[in-house]
Amino acid sequence: MRGDLIPLSKFHEECGIFGVYGHPEAANITYLGLHALQHRGQEGSGIVSSDGHDFSEEKGPGLVLEVFTKERLARLPGRMAIGHNRYSTSGGTHDKNLQPFLVNFTLGYLAMAHNGNLVNAQSVRDELEAYGAIFQSTTDSEVIVHLISHSREETLVGRIVDALTKVKGAFSLLFLSSEGLIAVRDSYGVRPLSLARLRDGWVVSSETVAFNLVEADYIRDVEPGELVVINEHGLTSYHPFAPTRQAQCVFEHVYFSRPDSRVFGHNVYSVRKRHGLRLAKEASVPADVVIPVPDSGIPAALGFAEGSGLRFEEGLVRSHYIGRTFIEPQDSIRNFGVRIKLSPIREVLEGKRVVVVDDSLVRGTTSRKLIKMIRGAGAKEVHLRIASPPIISPCFYGIDTPTRQELIATSHTIEETKQYIGADTLAYLSREGMFDAFPPADGAGQPFCDACFTGNYPVPFTKEELVQLGLF
Amino acid sequence: MRGDLIPLSKFHEECGIFGVYGHPEAANITYLGLHALQHRGQEGSGIVSSDGHDFSEEKGPGLVLEVFTKERLARLPGRMAIGHNRYSTSGGTHDKNLQPFLVNFTLGYLAMAHNGNLVNAQSVRDELEAYGAIFQSTTDSEVIVHLISHSREETLVGRIVDALTKVKGAFSLLFLSSEGLIAVRDSYGVRPLSLARLRDGWVVSSETVAFNLVEADYIRDVEPGELVVINEHGLTSYHPFAPTRQAQCVFEHVYFSRPDSRVFGHNVYSVRKRHGLRLAKEASVPADVVIPVPDSGIPAALGFAEGSGLRFEEGLVRSHYIGRTFIEPQDSIRNFGVRIKLSPIREVLEGKRVVVVDDSLVRGTTSRKLIKMIRGAGAKEVHLRIASPPIISPCFYGIDTPTRQELIATSHTIEETKQYIGADTLAYLSREGMFDAFPPADGAGQPFCDACFTGNYPVPFTKEELVQLGLF
Amino acid sequence: MRGDLIPLSKFHEECGIFGVYGHPEAANITYLGLHALQHRGQEGSGIVSSDGHDFSEEKGPGLVLEVFTKERLARLPGRMAIGHNRYSTSGGTHDKNLQPFLVNFTLGYLAMAHNGNLVNAQSVRDELEAYGAIFQSTTDSEVIVHLISHSREETLVGRIVDALTKVKGAFSLLFLSSEGLIAVRDSYGVRPLSLARLRDGWVVSSETVAFNLVEADYIRDVEPGELVVINEHGLTSYHPFAPTRQAQCVFEHVYFSRPDSRVFGHNVYSVRKRHGLRLAKEASVPADVVIPVPDSGIPAALGFAEGSGLRFEEGLVRSHYIGRTFIEPQDSIRNFGVRIKLSPIREVLEGKRVVVVDDSLVRGTTSRKLIKMIRGAGAKEVHLRIASPPIISPCFYGIDTPTRQELIATSHTIEETKQYIGADTLAYLSREGMFDAFPPADGAGQPFCDACFTGNYPVPFTKEELVQLGLF
Amino acid sequence: MRGDLIPLSKFHEECGIFGVYGHPEAANITYLGLHALQHRGQEGSGIVSSDGHDFSEEKGPGLVLEVFTKERLARLPGRMAIGHNRYSTSGGTHDKNLQPFLVNFTLGYLAMAHNGNLVNAQSVRDELEAYGAIFQSTTDSEVIVHLISHSREETLVGRIVDALTKVKGAFSLLFLSSEGLIAVRDSYGVRPLSLARLRDGWVVSSETVAFNLVEADYIRDVEPGELVVINEHGLTSYHPFAPTRQAQCVFEHVYFSRPDSRVFGHNVYSVRKRHGLRLAKEASVPADVVIPVPDSGIPAALGFAEGSGLRFEEGLVRSHYIGRTFIEPQDSIRNFGVRIKLSPIREVLEGKRVVVVDDSLVRGTTSRKLIKMIRGAGAKEVHLRIASPPIISPCFYGIDTPTRQELIATSHTIEETKQYIGADTLAYLSREGMFDAFPPADGAGQPFCDACFTGNYPVPFTKEELVQLGLF
Repeated sequence: MRGDLIPLSKFHEECGIFGVYGHPEAANITYLGLHALQHRGQEGSGIVSSDGHDFSEEKGPGLVLEVFTKERLARLPGRMAIGHNRYSTSGGTHDKNLQPFLVNFTLGYLAMAHNGNLVNAQSVRDELEAYGAIFQSTTDSEVIVHLISHSREETLVGRIVDALTKVKGAFSLLFLSSEGLIAVRDSYGVRPLSLARLRDGWVVSSETVAFNLVEADYIRDVEPGELVVINEHGLTSYHPFAPTRQAQCVFEHVYFSRPDSRVFGHNVYSVRKRHGLRLAKEASVPADVVIPVPDSGIPAALGFAEGSGLRFEEGLVRSHYIGRTFIEPQDSIRNFGVRIKLSPIREVLEGKRVVVVDDSLVRGTTSRKLIKMIRGAGAKEVHLRIASPPIISPCFYGIDTPTRQELIATSHTIEETKQYIGADTLAYLSREGMFDAFPPADGAGQPFCDACFTGNYPVPFTKEELVQLGLF
Repeated sequence: MRGDLIPLSKFHEECGIFGVYGHPEAANITYLGLHALQHRGQEGSGIVSSDGHDFSEEKGPGLVLEVFTKERLARLPGRMAIGHNRYSTSGGTHDKNLQPFLVNFTLGYLAMAHNGNLVNAQSVRDELEAYGAIFQSTTDSEVIVHLISHSREETLVGRIVDALTKVKGAFSLLFLSSEGLIAVRDSYGVRPLSLARLRDGWVVSSETVAFNLVEADYIRDVEPGELVVINEHGLTSYHPFAPTRQAQCVFEHVYFSRPDSRVFGHNVYSVRKRHGLRLAKEASVPADVVIPVPDSGIPAALGFAEGSGLRFEEGLVRSHYIGRTFIEPQDSIRNFGVRIKLSPIREVLEGKRVVVVDDSLVRGTTSRKLIKMIRGAGAKEVHLRIASPPIISPCFYGIDTPTRQELIATSHTIEETKQYIGADTLAYLSREGMFDAFPPADGAGQPFCDACFTGNYPVPFTKEELVQLGLF
Repeated sequence: MRGDLIPLSKFHEECGIFGVYGHPEAANITYLGLHALQHRGQEGSGIVSSDGHDFSEEKGPGLVLEVFTKERLARLPGRMAIGHNRYSTSGGTHDKNLQPFLVNFTLGYLAMAHNGNLVNAQSVRDELEAYGAIFQSTTDSEVIVHLISHSREETLVGRIVDALTKVKGAFSLLFLSSEGLIAVRDSYGVRPLSLARLRDGWVVSSETVAFNLVEADYIRDVEPGELVVINEHGLTSYHPFAPTRQAQCVFEHVYFSRPDSRVFGHNVYSVRKRHGLRLAKEASVPADVVIPVPDSGIPAALGFAEGSGLRFEEGLVRSHYIGRTFIEPQDSIRNFGVRIKLSPIREVLEGKRVVVVDDSLVRGTTSRKLIKMIRGAGAKEVHLRIASPPIISPCFYGIDTPTRQELIATSHTIEETKQYIGADTLAYLSREGMFDAFPPADGAGQPFCDACFTGNYPVPFTKEELVQLGLF
Repeated sequence: MRGDLIPLSKFHEECGIFGVYGHPEAANITYLGLHALQHRGQEGSGIVSSDGHDFSEEKGPGLVLEVFTKERLARLPGRMAIGHNRYSTSGGTHDKNLQPFLVNFTLGYLAMAHNGNLVNAQSVRDELEAYGAIFQSTTDSEVIVHLISHSREETLVGRIVDALTKVKGAFSLLFLSSEGLIAVRDSYGVRPLSLARLRDGWVVSSETVAFNLVEADYIRDVEPGELVVINEHGLTSYHPFAPTRQAQCVFEHVYFSRPDSRVFGHNVYSVRKRHGLRLAKEASVPADVVIPVPDSGIPAALGFAEGSGLRFEEGLVRSHYIGRTFIEPQDSIRNFGVRIKLSPIREVLEGKRVVVVDDSLVRGTTSRKLIKMIRGAGAKEVHLRIASPPIISPCFYGIDTPTRQELIATSHTIEETKQYIGADTLAYLSREGMFDAFPPADGAGQPFCDACFTGNYPVPFTKEELVQLGLF
């Protein structure tokens, strides 16, 4: 741990959470669930399990399959468990930041796993520290645990509600105590959280893809603002928070979630494909072939090809053996970072007018390298189509976007961006096009947060928060 | 090492080999080349480098990225290097079996990397042992090193040629000695081997995909029966072996090679796509959607969709985080082995008549699970289309196929196979269809080995070999 | 972490602490100091260093030499550092229990290392938890950190004094903050702590043996009840605690400290040798040879030989390669646990009347095995001489003694003990003999705690503590 | 492996070997035996076990306790096993050099473990390589295996004898084959090798100390020139080699063996003590105290004290936690290398005239540092007494001595040596004194090799060997 001021960028965490109640192999099921949610966080992973009396904890850096050996899973007995995948953020990685947090406080043991991000974590932390609290991690999530521990409410649920009314931001949360499994989603519903049955027990997951793997039957989403207690009496639902407008993260559909998940009631693959179909209508171009940037660009590229009548091809092959670090020769290789992940098929591209479809454009640096590589493989023209609008604002609710300055769309016009990345043409999907991909019932209510595309954050910030978040 | 009789199944090795001559970072380039060839072998990896005087060696089990740390690469100095990826075979894995072999014999140091398989390894080994030779590994490859060491020829090239005339089977070989880099391909040309220039130096690789990554320029294939010496005098070509009919492995195109490689003069992606187009003509079926078994089935599925006019969709999502072992719950999950790798998108499959396209069908067990999973996701009909003929004979030239008994096509008719795997219909590509995918010039000469589809092995076996290979 | 009630046996910790102020390689010096103190704790080790602004922390299970690699030491910059060795206690070992603790509280960063044991830790912890505090470890030491964090005093020193007045028990403590290095010793002076100069800087250590290694010059002990602040203004001494009688642990001299250390003003080797001389006077026996139980019994055995005029020999050879675990054959070996550590020299023992001198006798099980082994090597008679009185009470101030029930002297008379261990005769050093080994000035004031030999604990316990400590 | 000429210094190997025949836990017994022989080699360790049909092998760098986990031992089934400890030599350590060697040759499996050193290894190796042999290691031992494999004799015993008549030098050897366990000792008997019974089975060990640990009963030494076969028919003894004068290594008694071993028929501790007694007669000096350099100097120091009537004290404490590497501060510590291993007790040394007794003096560099440290602890005079004669010639039979140039006695007179190391007086034990420590019967026959003290090597070298060994 370095004693610098806690960098706020650390607070930006995408994560996956998963919980089981009432299964004899709760930890093993959680391990599989976390594996299915691996795309939501690769930095490290942890599981806490319990038989209602003892609590066991195993955590470590790396992928789920690396962290959990047979021996470690065997040290996680009990019929209930929660787990967490943490995203790889830049800067120091510390085991202390890995979740679930397991603490022993005056009501006994409590474990917590958090997906989302709090915007007032620093000021709450300052207050708690003045009061004598000692923090172990540099994450925003830990303030919730301390607020619960310091609450004067009598019951655990009372203390959780008390604590959550004091924080602002996005949270999908799982708690494990001797009283059972508790799942909560903030009133905006920023991050997803879904419920399923597994035989006599219950499963909760960030994404439904994990239900497929463990053969659980999807029941419904945990609703925005809902707190659910699962114990030997079954499932009890509470709505303890003041209602507010919903602000579900549309970027989960654009990029973050798996195509085989159902998120906020919509299948991700289908939404992405409709984004491609609409983009073909909004920004068609004469061309010979449509290729995706694999894997997240595939559904939109299929939609674009269908919408435009152009031929879909696999023009870029994605490597299956990508690690965290590569040793590059000193005499370095052009576009190494892209080349190690993606390899062009010359026979598909040579002499062709190529439409490349990607899900989103953040900094533009990767697209620039990619387009150079595609041209190097003989493409005559390269037309980049982005299946979402330009990103102009950072996310403070749990997606690890760069700062405003690093977003290419804040400093470059579309024409300038096209020049920079070296495309022949560049077009983005319109905001309307993005939302029209959701069935009318939903589009009407506009239940989404699209702050990254518009700068309209669902919650107003205090001046202090604006300073802390670098927005002022 | 267990002292059992050396199991012949050990002899079945698919591998990738890569060499560099005349580059200041020869080992680092080899490391990247081996990474690009990772699909040809995941059991372990090794590199030997040299400055012409000292020879350095690093090997280990696991993926290229795991084996070679910065420290290990730094221990591999010199302007020339060869490397090897070993395929994961069942049974014990021993470091002693990892290549390249580095030995010090009477002519000095010699390193060797082998892709292919020798059919008379056991009898040659018996002879050499009677003569006093001591073997370190249980691989067929090591007999070549001993034959070289025991040869009475004076020059290294003379000894290599002498040794290779005594072995039968498939070999693409790289040697590294103080005299330079030597590449050889057997007269049948069973396994691929290609040459490229990297600045002033040379690169040799099992597949051209590795040239893309290191920015080397493809020159030509090492020809069947050719021995190439690369040293400070440049490249010298020899054709020391008696000419024979060519027998290049068609299965490299069907399944084994990367789609972005050029193998035996043909781009693999294009060949596979033509297989799909032809299959659509040979075995069309009324349906709503065509989906591939990713990743190897994608090109053929695109061809099938194009040829049949049906819609291509991504119906199965492949996980990017697959490890070697998974801890399955005791209360086991149905079709766990398939489910952990592939996840169906219900919205694509539900209520649909689905054509599933795969590259080949070996045992049928995976397809059976897959089809169950697709039906479980709501598919109304499932039609399996295989983009190659039925496999009826094991390979003895370097592809790790199961024994004849385990091949479903040897014991089941197509109708019985269909029943077993649970498809509504099943069809294979014809042998003619498979070969017609190659431009006429080639098809005419029939330069391919298709023994796995026909049982016509290019070299007649002795009776002893038949017994040893389990064919008698 | 298992959620059982925190076992009180965990609270029994022997440890070594070491600190440096004002040296450019503070962490490296601390690493060597901890190595010299390795005998005080082998479970795990940690160092926190600081440049006065940033704080860095490295910890891990195992020996100092195993925990700290060159890379880890390089991650510990700054001119001040503190370190801690933790003793191996039975039961689970958790990194969370390793010290120094590093926390960030309202006054900034604070690191703490503790040698000793608090007797009211549980009740203080209960109070703090009721107040909302969240504990990370199961150690007694952590309550000090929380008391400091919760104190209403303004200065760090004020908060430390405030906190320490609320705990009962033994503590030699090191703190590191941006304000410098702080060393404290409880008013009883139970555990040692000494000061030395290292060039322009300062060094603090549990034992002076560490000064020898790093070439520091011993200045004086930190006095019982003294708090010392070392910063850029030099050393400032405080005596903030109410004076009390001193109770320095005599067992440090009997067994725990290194013979080359100066503890409480006396060289340990000299004291032990005088114990042996006195024991020879108190309990001589006709014999042929005197042998020590190496290594801690050597000085007393030399004294016994000198006092009795008997010949001293090395009759037992101690292995230098002892690890934590041994794999014993199923067909087990007699007295394996002793035999693996000590090996008899038959030529020294055969046919002899042997006096075996050991420093202390705890459970008797090892002596029993040892005596069997010595008889097995041919000894005619075996006379056990113990250079300290019978142990009849557990230690609650930081020495890891077994419970009262396990101490052989609580349930067996000397005669019964002799029978149990199988000696021909058995004698202990008298309490007077033990104390007479210290020069008169000290013996007069009786500054020692000898509770383990007498049951007279220096601080009266509350009834609650008696229950918690298992004394009631 | 670096391709340099094989450095001859590599050939200097001290080692420990251990074998078991006829015990259900042969590998576990071997593991314990190797642990007891750990002082003979710390570089790495290996065991090969067999049930008579299968052979299993586990090897690795490090101490026995580190190399063999429960899992690895479980992979070593069978009722017979042999093991080997390898000494840490400077330069590259390679797993390939670890023994036992396990090979599969024309007679089946054969494992071999070697203690000693061959002086004609290079020329035999050159011959074998010209004949086609491929070597895996850079050790001298491997030539024996190849000679066996190339022998034209029919039986294994015949081939072993044939091979051993072709090598010159020192060898105590263990072989394991499907025919049983074979033990051989060269005709000079340079290195020790002893036989014991373990229940119904047999144990063979470099030193008898290992018998103590596993509770085996010492029977007799394998005789110089004897070959022993142990199998289901019991023990059969052969004397196939031409008789010669015996040349048992006296340095085993001076330094190398454990004091609790019986070597060449004499207890090592007793011999060393007699060396000290004699040294007191030959070179007494007025002094206050005698201290040993622990641990190997202890018996001689006890003898010296007894012989001189001076008081024996423990003046230097040896650390029990010595590792392979220490991270020294840049601002380095005086005499760090000695200080980290040995720590002086000031109270024993201050103001005293000190006799320091060590077993032998090689380079003088350590003694120089040690004497400085002892003076630094206050000694008034320091008199060094060496319990063996000056070492003037390197050993070519298996003790890792430095080259002739590095031996201080080859370039310095005793007076110059005294000056260099900084002692007040220096004396060595005479050669007669050294040999008189053995009972007359032995001294008469002079069965010892004392080449390191005299330069009289038992076997004349060829001119080529002289050049290779650096003697010419």
